[in-house]
Amino acid sequence: MVRAQRACRAFAPDDVDDDIVLEVLRAATFAPSAENRQPWEFVVVRDPDARQVIGDVTARAWAGGGRAYSESRLAPELLADVDAGATGGIAAAPVLVVVCGDHQRGNANAMASSIFPAVQNLMLAAGALGLGSALTTMPTAMRAELAALLGLPEHVVPMAVIPLGRPAKPLGPPRRDPVEQHVHHDRYGKTRQ
Amino acid sequence: MVRAQRACRAFAPDDVDDDIVLEVLRAATFAPSAENRQPWEFVVVRDPDARQVIGDVTARAWAGGGRAYSESRLAPELLADVDAGATGGIAAAPVLVVVCGDHQRGNANAMASSIFPAVQNLMLAAGALGLGSALTTMPTAMRAELAALLGLPEHVVPMAVIPLGRPAKPLGPPRRDPVEQHVHHDRYGKTRQ
Repeated sequence: MVRAQRACRAFAPDDVDDDIVLEVLRAATFAPSAENRQPWEFVVVRDPDARQVIGDVTARAWAGGGRAYSESRLAPELLADVDAGATGGIAAAPVLVVVCGDHQRGNANAMASSIFPAVQNLMLAAGALGLGSALTTMPTAMRAELAALLGLPEHVVPMAVIPLGRPAKPLGPPRRDPVEQHVHHDRYGKTRQ
Repeated sequence: MVRAQRACRAFAPDDVDDDIVLEVLRAATFAPSAENRQPWEFVVVRDPDARQVIGDVTARAWAGGGRAYSESRLAPELLADVDAGATGGIAAAPVLVVVCGDHQRGNANAMASSIFPAVQNLMLAAGALGLGSALTTMPTAMRAELAALLGLPEHVVPMAVIPLGRPAKPLGPPRRDPVEQHVHHDRYGKTRQ
């Protein structure tokens, strides 16, 4: 699955079984975390109104700066895809998983390194089970709105929103630089041993 | 592999082929990154002197605060394991991969969410190929030493050091909370729909 992962930002309306979601989240919990503190909390959002609010938050973050920032940086095709995702595509997924870090269990310095490996496990498991997903962090910029919507206590901080659902269309292959371009041997810039 | 991943902090001295390391790093590059910027740079450290320096940095960070912080927080067995890893076990791995984020390619706000999924892919691929690994971020607290040792430019920031090698002993099963303890439905604290 590793080499087939691609962000999915357009979803079919078909529902996803609770058992499948739980399986995907279980895979997430097998990621490493600092001191094995397992500081993750997953809010599975299915309620249409709540998904709509998250969609609005996302669209607002995108319109209020995200798009302007990305416009000149993204290839036109990718920009169009992100655009469609941010303005409704992602919120249309039947399930949005809001991945949070619990600061009573985990240390702030180690929070990102403890949460994003779990997020990656989550997405790999989703792919293995035929689901599309995407790693979005934009809505977390609107922490207060998400906290109010989901009833998050102060110490539980949203870090990513992952849509899950059946892809609306086939996802193409991911585009990556050849790994050799980013590998150094013993010293930066030393590309061969 | 997802459910078998466990931190390895004691390594057999057997070497790891370059092809295997490259395969593991290639898997890393198939992780998602913000704007598909692929901001990762991997420094593969095999040189014994360089590994020794990284080991010393790690041991110093551990002795200089890490251990005191973790002492009361870790179960005795895990503390002993981390202790042995930080004081030589990790540096004894034949390969140390220093994973860096390139701030000329990636945005600082999205760096952690772009690097740690790749780190997780790296470790999953290592496990699939029979290698032990562990996610360590402690040495990155000593950014200046690592930058000097590896010749890192200012904009290339070390974020994790991953030892790779054949495990010196079998790794037990990972210990995790039941996923249900960390899943909420639509609102935090709502454990059933």
